[in-house]
Order: sequence, then C-alpha cells, then structure tokens
Amino acid sequence: MAGDAAPLTDKQVRKLLDPHRIADGEGFRLKHHPSSNPAPDLLDKAHASTLLQRGVQRLSELQGLLYSSATWSLLVVFQGMDAAGKDSGIKHVMSGVNPQGVSVTSFKAPDTADLAHDFLYRANRALPARGMIGIFNRSHYEEVLITRVHPNLLGPQHLPPGLLGKRFWDDRLQSILDWERHLARQGTRVLKFYLHVSRAEQKRRFLDRLDHPEKNWKFSAADVAERAHWDAYMDAYESAIARTAAPHAPWFIIPADQKWFARLMIAAAINEELESLDLHPPELSAEQAGSLADARRALEREA
Amino acid sequence: MAGDAAPLTDKQVRKLLDPHRIADGEGFRLKHHPSSNPAPDLLDKAHASTLLQRGVQRLSELQGLLYSSATWSLLVVFQGMDAAGKDSGIKHVMSGVNPQGVSVTSFKAPDTADLAHDFLYRANRALPARGMIGIFNRSHYEEVLITRVHPNLLGPQHLPPGLLGKRFWDDRLQSILDWERHLARQGTRVLKFYLHVSRAEQKRRFLDRLDHPEKNWKFSAADVAERAHWDAYMDAYESAIARTAAPHAPWFIIPADQKWFARLMIAAAINEELESLDLHPPELSAEQAGSLADARRALEREA
Repeated sequence: MAGDAAPLTDKQVRKLLDPHRIADGEGFRLKHHPSSNPAPDLLDKAHASTLLQRGVQRLSELQGLLYSSATWSLLVVFQGMDAAGKDSGIKHVMSGVNPQGVSVTSFKAPDTADLAHDFLYRANRALPARGMIGIFNRSHYEEVLITRVHPNLLGPQHLPPGLLGKRFWDDRLQSILDWERHLARQGTRVLKFYLHVSRAEQKRRFLDRLDHPEKNWKFSAADVAERAHWDAYMDAYESAIARTAAPHAPWFIIPADQKWFARLMIAAAINEELESLDLHPPELSAEQAGSLADARRALEREA
Repeated sequence: MAGDAAPLTDKQVRKLLDPHRIADGEGFRLKHHPSSNPAPDLLDKAHASTLLQRGVQRLSELQGLLYSSATWSLLVVFQGMDAAGKDSGIKHVMSGVNPQGVSVTSFKAPDTADLAHDFLYRANRALPARGMIGIFNRSHYEEVLITRVHPNLLGPQHLPPGLLGKRFWDDRLQSILDWERHLARQGTRVLKFYLHVSRAEQKRRFLDRLDHPEKNWKFSAADVAERAHWDAYMDAYESAIARTAAPHAPWFIIPADQKWFARLMIAAAINEELESLDLHPPELSAEQAGSLADARRALEREA
C-alpha cells in the first residue's frame, strides 16, 4: 500500500508527470490519455498531500527568485470541462505563494470591448509582467473550444466578411501557436494544463455541488446542458492540443478524476519549468556594487 | 514571559489593535503613536507567529466567502517608508489566501499614460472587482507624499494652469477623501495601513540589505538619500492621515519596528473588517432553486 512506502522523491514525481507532457502534437489522441490516477500502487491521497505540501513550499521559493530576477515570466493556462478542478487546483497549488508575484485572470464571457477586438486581445492584456506568474483560469483557448462547439457565439465578434471560411479554426490555432512562440521567445514560459475528467466524474461532482448548499453557487443549470456536447468538446480539445503543443509551450494532459493527483502533477510541472530557468538572485554590476558601497558609507556616517 | 502564557484570544488581539485605528483624524499626531510593539509583556515573536497562522487561516476562509458572495470588495492600502515591511507584510499575511481572489498592485513611478491623466486614474484602474481583495502596495497616497516632498515630480503631470495654488494639497486630500467615500458607499471596504518604522530601524534594515547579497536587489542607493527628507515625509503622512481617516476608510498606524507585530495587527484588522460584513454563501432565489432541481433531474435521467 502506498501509505506504508517511503515518500516519492521529486525525481520520482517527475517521472510520473512525464507521460502526461505533450510537447509535440503529432498523432495526439485524447482517448489515449487516462483521466484517473495511473499509479494507484505508488501514490494515494495522503501520500500526495505530503508531496504537494513540499511542492508548494518549493514553488514559493522559486517564485521569489523569479520575482527578484524580473526577467522571465511564467504563463500557466488552465483548461478543462466544468468541474474539472480548475479553481480548486489554482487554490491548492498557488495558495502559499506570495500573491504579489501572481496574477490570476478568470476568463468569463467576453465583454463588449473584448468582442470589438481580435480574439487574443484580452489574453494579451492579462499577460504576466517580467518576474510574475500569470495564471489563466480558462484562456484564449476558449476561442477554439466553446466557440467551436457553439459557432453562434462568433456572431457578436464583428468578424470581417470572408474570415469565416473553412480555414477559420486552423487559422485561429495557427495564431495561438505563433503568439505563444512569440511570448516564449521574449521570455515568457508557457505551460498549459488540460484537466482531464471523465464524463462520469463530472456528473458525480455536479451532483455533489447540488447536494451541498454552500457549493450551489458554483453550479449553473446551463452546465448540465453542456454535457450534451461532450464529444464535440473532446474533439475541439483534441484539435487544439494537437495543433498547439510545442516544446516552447507544452500541454499537460493531467488525469483529474482525483483532484489530489492533478494538483501534485501541476505543482511538479511548474516547479520543473522554473527550475529549468536556473534562477539566482540578481548579481550586481561593478557600478551598482560601487553605488551600494557609497550608500553604506553614507549610512554609517549618519549621526 | 509571553512564551509561557496561554495564547491570546482573537478578542485580545483585537484589543491590541484598537489604539492603532484612526477613524477620525481630528488632532492626529504621528508622534503620539509608537513604532515599536507596545505590549512586550503580552506578546513575543514566537507567540505572534502562532497567532498569525491562525489569522491567515481565518482570512483564507473569509476570502472564500467574500469571493462567492461577489458583492462587497475590500481595498487594502499599504503605505510606509522604504523597508517598513510592506512587501514582506503582504507576503506573510496574504500567502495562504487563494490568489484567484486577490489582486496585488505595486505602484511604482507613474508611466506616461498615468501622467497624462488625473492622479487617481491608475488607482481606479487597479480597484478590486466585487468579491475580490485588492492590495495596493503604495497607492494613490504617494501623490500627496512623495510629490509633496519633491514637488518637481509634478512637472510631468500636465497640470492645468492655476491648479498649483495654495489649496493644491488640500484639494488632493479632499479628492482622496471623496473618492474613498464613493468606494465605500458602493460596496468597497477600504482599510489603510501606515507601517510605522523608526528612522533608526530603517537604517538597521538598510544595512541588513547591504550585508546580504541576496537582499541587495531590494536596495537602491537613492533610498538612503531619501532619509534626508525624513521629517518632511512624516509631516506629509501626518497631514494625509489626519485628513483622510474616516469611519468608512480608517487608517491603522501600525508599530512596525517588529515585523511580526505588524503582520499580526494587519491580519487582525482585515479579519475584523471581513467579519463585520457577516458573509454567508449566497442564497438561492426560488427560481434558482427550481432551476437546480431541474438540473438534478436531468442529470439523474442520464443513462
């Protein structure tokens, strides 16, 4: 039983993460990816909770280094069906990190100003500054997901005549790919999480929200109606992931039927990315060092 | 010794906070307020650390309720001299809170677009949405503090001729008072913290930043030069606090020579404010309840 074993090392956790990373979308099929903890013999909830605590602590340290270096930034995209665990994942992985270094943007229905611009406009405005971690709870990907499943949502988008041809979705995906490549080139690391829940698990979570009055506010009757489009959503996700998975902006297809498993994988992926930046406190130039030495003398000279 | 006593209750902590709350600026004098822990017999660092943990946990719960009710919002302003503990205060009080419900804005020198607008413009843009906690690390108050000490900073502000008369600072303070009253009236609770450090403690912290290479990045030689204007800053703070302290937007003059004391008081003040809102999970209208019942039937009917 997992509970009796020694805790997994960081290296072992990352090995668990590896099969879920998609850095090349060629031949990607969503159905080849599990929605459930693939290693029940290695990992249970209690064990994962200890490991997550360690991961969050490490993330907090790395965020401090990212912030003080103020050079790189990190964009973390969360996508998934309703009740996949996006909100609670953000809460459990990111609480404990200094909120001064984190901006979370929850993308809801676009407002009038958003609709009057290109579909990447509002994502651009929400990008993390250098040194910051930007979290997108839903994202620009909704524009190739929900709008693809419900093309009537394109109506209010002021699209120029002729744009809505047969290359429309391909072009949008190409725009996303190009945009993320631009961001990566300029110093924003991009990580994208698809929280993969099964349709049965979503049903269970919806019923749980209905059963608990304090969770009712998270539930909308429209969410149930969307279940009728489940397969269309899976197709849209599959196309989007296949087309936009790249070394500079990988997707992680995270088994999310157990929230604790998903959270552990999310923390591991973020930490691995931040560690790859080899962050250190900023070093001073000779000039800066001289200026600090002057400052020290000035302080010491004070009465 | 404090370490041997039973931990203070929330009520006792709030009693410690009381003398630091200024809800009416009449006769306010900064020099009547201590910069050091006023109750060393009641509270030491270890004790405060336990209490802070409890406070942060409570804050995390209250933030969840604030977010789900999505009606009120909370604006928390941090002001203080360099090294007063603003950044670390935000880190220690707000880490542990879901960053999805918190936006932190660090106000640096105004940029070109800010300078082309009225002095409240950028503060307006950074306001928390309903349900959110907005943290201002420095704030609109800089426009009656640093600009008052260094009036040359007004040069690039495009001020209309005639504005710069003898009522200039009074008018700015009146604008702030009016603006905060507007916010309070519309559902944004406003709390303002002045982290009160002594000039001697600032010197000690500057030397500490110089002594530790990993803290060098927090230090700028210009910060030492500002110490020459200490008394002018104190005068500017005193005027600003006296003029803008109000029941709807109180100032807290927090002794900040011991960071752990300041953090405990900050958490206590925020929690007290949020508790006064008597937050509960949103209740459903009869119509909403009916719609959820329909949704449940639809889910249960599924194969």
